[in-house]
Amino acid sequence: MAKYLIIGGVAAGMSAAARLRRLDETTEIIVLERGEYVSYANCGLPYYIGNEITDRDELLLQTPQSFKRRFNADVRIHNEAVAVHPERKTVTVNNLRTGEQYEESYDSLLLTPGGSPVKPAIPGSRHPAIKTLWTIPDTDAIKAIVDNGSVRKALVVGGGFIGLEMAENIRLRGIEVTVVEMAPQVMNAIDPEMAAIVHGELRKNGIELFLNETVTVFEPLPGGGVLARLGSGARLEAELVLLSIGVAPNTGFLADSGIELGARGHIIVDQHLRTNQPDIYAAGDAIEVINPFSGKRGAVPLAGPANKQGRIAADTIHGIMTRCYTGTMGTSIAKVFDLAVGITGATEKFCRAESIPYRSVINHSGHHAEYYPGATMLSFKLTFCPETRRVLGAQVVGYEGVDKRIDVIATAIKGGMTVDDLTEIEHAYAPPYSSAKDPVNMIGFIAQNILDGLVQSISYDAVAPAVAEGAYLLDVRSLGEFLAGTIAGAVNIPVDMLRRKLSKLPKDRPILIFCKVGVRGYIASRILTAHGFTNCFNLSGGIDTYNAASTM
Amino acid sequence: MAKYLIIGGVAAGMSAAARLRRLDETTEIIVLERGEYVSYANCGLPYYIGNEITDRDELLLQTPQSFKRRFNADVRIHNEAVAVHPERKTVTVNNLRTGEQYEESYDSLLLTPGGSPVKPAIPGSRHPAIKTLWTIPDTDAIKAIVDNGSVRKALVVGGGFIGLEMAENIRLRGIEVTVVEMAPQVMNAIDPEMAAIVHGELRKNGIELFLNETVTVFEPLPGGGVLARLGSGARLEAELVLLSIGVAPNTGFLADSGIELGARGHIIVDQHLRTNQPDIYAAGDAIEVINPFSGKRGAVPLAGPANKQGRIAADTIHGIMTRCYTGTMGTSIAKVFDLAVGITGATEKFCRAESIPYRSVINHSGHHAEYYPGATMLSFKLTFCPETRRVLGAQVVGYEGVDKRIDVIATAIKGGMTVDDLTEIEHAYAPPYSSAKDPVNMIGFIAQNILDGLVQSISYDAVAPAVAEGAYLLDVRSLGEFLAGTIAGAVNIPVDMLRRKLSKLPKDRPILIFCKVGVRGYIASRILTAHGFTNCFNLSGGIDTYNAASTM
Repeated sequence: MAKYLIIGGVAAGMSAAARLRRLDETTEIIVLERGEYVSYANCGLPYYIGNEITDRDELLLQTPQSFKRRFNADVRIHNEAVAVHPERKTVTVNNLRTGEQYEESYDSLLLTPGGSPVKPAIPGSRHPAIKTLWTIPDTDAIKAIVDNGSVRKALVVGGGFIGLEMAENIRLRGIEVTVVEMAPQVMNAIDPEMAAIVHGELRKNGIELFLNETVTVFEPLPGGGVLARLGSGARLEAELVLLSIGVAPNTGFLADSGIELGARGHIIVDQHLRTNQPDIYAAGDAIEVINPFSGKRGAVPLAGPANKQGRIAADTIHGIMTRCYTGTMGTSIAKVFDLAVGITGATEKFCRAESIPYRSVINHSGHHAEYYPGATMLSFKLTFCPETRRVLGAQVVGYEGVDKRIDVIATAIKGGMTVDDLTEIEHAYAPPYSSAKDPVNMIGFIAQNILDGLVQSISYDAVAPAVAEGAYLLDVRSLGEFLAGTIAGAVNIPVDMLRRKLSKLPKDRPILIFCKVGVRGYIASRILTAHGFTNCFNLSGGIDTYNAASTM
Repeated sequence: MAKYLIIGGVAAGMSAAARLRRLDETTEIIVLERGEYVSYANCGLPYYIGNEITDRDELLLQTPQSFKRRFNADVRIHNEAVAVHPERKTVTVNNLRTGEQYEESYDSLLLTPGGSPVKPAIPGSRHPAIKTLWTIPDTDAIKAIVDNGSVRKALVVGGGFIGLEMAENIRLRGIEVTVVEMAPQVMNAIDPEMAAIVHGELRKNGIELFLNETVTVFEPLPGGGVLARLGSGARLEAELVLLSIGVAPNTGFLADSGIELGARGHIIVDQHLRTNQPDIYAAGDAIEVINPFSGKRGAVPLAGPANKQGRIAADTIHGIMTRCYTGTMGTSIAKVFDLAVGITGATEKFCRAESIPYRSVINHSGHHAEYYPGATMLSFKLTFCPETRRVLGAQVVGYEGVDKRIDVIATAIKGGMTVDDLTEIEHAYAPPYSSAKDPVNMIGFIAQNILDGLVQSISYDAVAPAVAEGAYLLDVRSLGEFLAGTIAGAVNIPVDMLRRKLSKLPKDRPILIFCKVGVRGYIASRILTAHGFTNCFNLSGGIDTYNAASTM
């Protein structure tokens, strides 16, 4: 009878344990979990603090007892693995409840220890008002002080996906929330002009943002709170501070095991999720995965990949070698108040940093037919390879239908599809759900037009330099739109009048054309090009993107 | 200067006209439209009658004047093409306003005449209370009598996608609605057990359904209504009857043109949307397209394909031959009250009819994390090829997130992806949008388990025959669920007690295992298989699908 030992009882570990049992009734399965809870809904924790989820039991998907009944596995909570001995195939375990130490043997060992929030070396950060949110006990502690009404102001350090989910949920409890982020934007995974839309939503909902800022010291205040001093000299008082600046792998106990770890302590695995040591496998937040665009290894601590890895690790352990884990492209989404912010694949920022050839386009369009009530604007940025025409990534920000477009693009990337394929996707259309040409088709058409040479596009951040060099700025929106606000220096000729006013345009200067979102600008570009103004450029995403980016 | 003539000014025709202008400023573009309106929102018409869309102008996306200004095309409404003369490259046109007839020449001719609702040869069906809904004037006429309060009861003949959209919108106006459908189910494009869920939603919202029924005669009633007599002898009175039994192509005027038409009058085109006549092209509802699964030609009158075809036809006319229209797989969605019903690709019904090798599975799961508030159930049926493992089609019914899963599967089919690929799609996960394993991943896992031989599944409609042959019915849900109702003759052993009660099970009979949706049944199947009960089968979709199907 094979004996499987699993270290870590949350997403990847429990997913693997269940699969191992379904594959074989006869094996012995032991799960060691140092905490009190297994299989809990870690992605739901902020919403429990925000009272969106009201029943704490909803967060507890399995208990050791329920898992035993269903999957006949021995789940040992409060049992912490402290050393692995590949040469004798054992693990040293501390029973945290009794204080006893014991050695457990295995035939196959699966490492799914997960990660823990990074605590920065900021002086004063051990103050009891300064918390991280990762586990059920973390959640209970934070919720208790929120519930007892003692928090008037909260400070979230780190404006990543989880930090913003926390900021929202604490704000929803009526608490003043400030976010301090060291980058010039929140959600550093996305491009700045997309993050700018998120900044607007945060501010609209009363969140104060300090960007390009760090906390240099926390000082205790009488009465229980802290004073955070920022690099700029600003001072913020808060009764609750949430640190959300990253996650480090819980792999300290592997230091002397001979198991290969990456530079930041993550476990190195192959495509079958095998470590360098025989019969030892790993999955979840503690491993390094391959980025399919750069080919580089990195950590991508996300629940979806962790669950999928757990299943594949189980298959490998069971001897099913037909499945591989080929990489993680970091598809993510977060709700930020009413907004959804989604990303899949490579951003422009990433392509630049990795010297990956790319082009990018932005479009704004209704998430369903604009004539059907309730249509809201989607901002959609696509990156693609100019040589292969393949889709590299997408970022979508909007109020409805964001997740759908991200999932479609993630599927297209998985299928190695091109921008031409995007134009041909036969989506489900009825007015409550989409338009006859879905935003996915539209962004494909725009990319296709660029690659086919029908239009030259210019990015929002290239406008000012081009104008400084003498470019002519042409606003092709209606007079009413122009009068309500335009880019400084722009001349207005509505697209529908352009054919009759061509003589007003300079032949010897580059012409930067813009409209609200890019559609009329494209038509105007085609008119100008046909009339010999070949040095013209359409502003990608129109003035909507330009304006959003300039309010960073 | 090339002269392009387009016959038909709605989706495909106007899409082509706009693209032709963007490709070339110098050409002459004439659009002939026999009706009064061009580019109207035909998919929105039912919602205008239902007062969901309240501003009639919202339905009118372009006028001849606005299109002229934007795209410099000569759009002639009330101008009906009555004959095409390929040999002299002209079209005979009736000006319906003046009664004059003229001949218009072309260099390239695009046929986008669309279709019209089929009017069945039912005696009495010329009565003024009997309408079809296809155009703006149709809509105005129907809305007028609904608005004036004279309709107490309405009858919709034909329970397809459009028929049900109409039924809903009329019902929302407080009118009693009956739907008469000649098939045993509404929405004949989907499989019966999925349609059964729609039947429930319709009845819940007060729609009376007559299935397997036809109207044999309409008799005028004093006061303006009609009496419809059904084949069964039933009699229905209504002040408004909407016929929605199909669409025929408007191609009568091509009869003597030499342009090849299909058996039902649709225009035959190649992948570049060229007809058999030189310089004559066609797109939209009036053409036959290839079904990518059967390879057969057929008509698929949908707005998405029409728009995409219009653009490709324009490219062909302009000489861009790199784009093809490769077929239509009939991706569709309809809102039926709060329910969304979506389909893409091949159904089980279709695979059977076309002798395409297939397997199918059904799953029910929350449209997002079940612990996050507002999760609703998605019913998801997947068809796939047992040899290539490729995805063939999907049907999804539910309250939220239906369109997303259909679009993802449509993209996967477009990319030639397999059920294994579905398990690996890296979707956007946060609790408000999905689960760590999305329903798309889950249905992939289930299909994979079947193809890998881990579980044998049985369809709801095979249960009764198997039981009659002596199969043992095992309900693995909890005792409480069992007591609240089960399949007649089933024995209850909850999955968590199964390992201890194996001795109660017969070794010599097939065992049909079921739970609510199929997940516990799968675990039970694995337990039984491991203990030598190899002749066991898990009910696909569980008792939820079984019960839905038995209320057809």
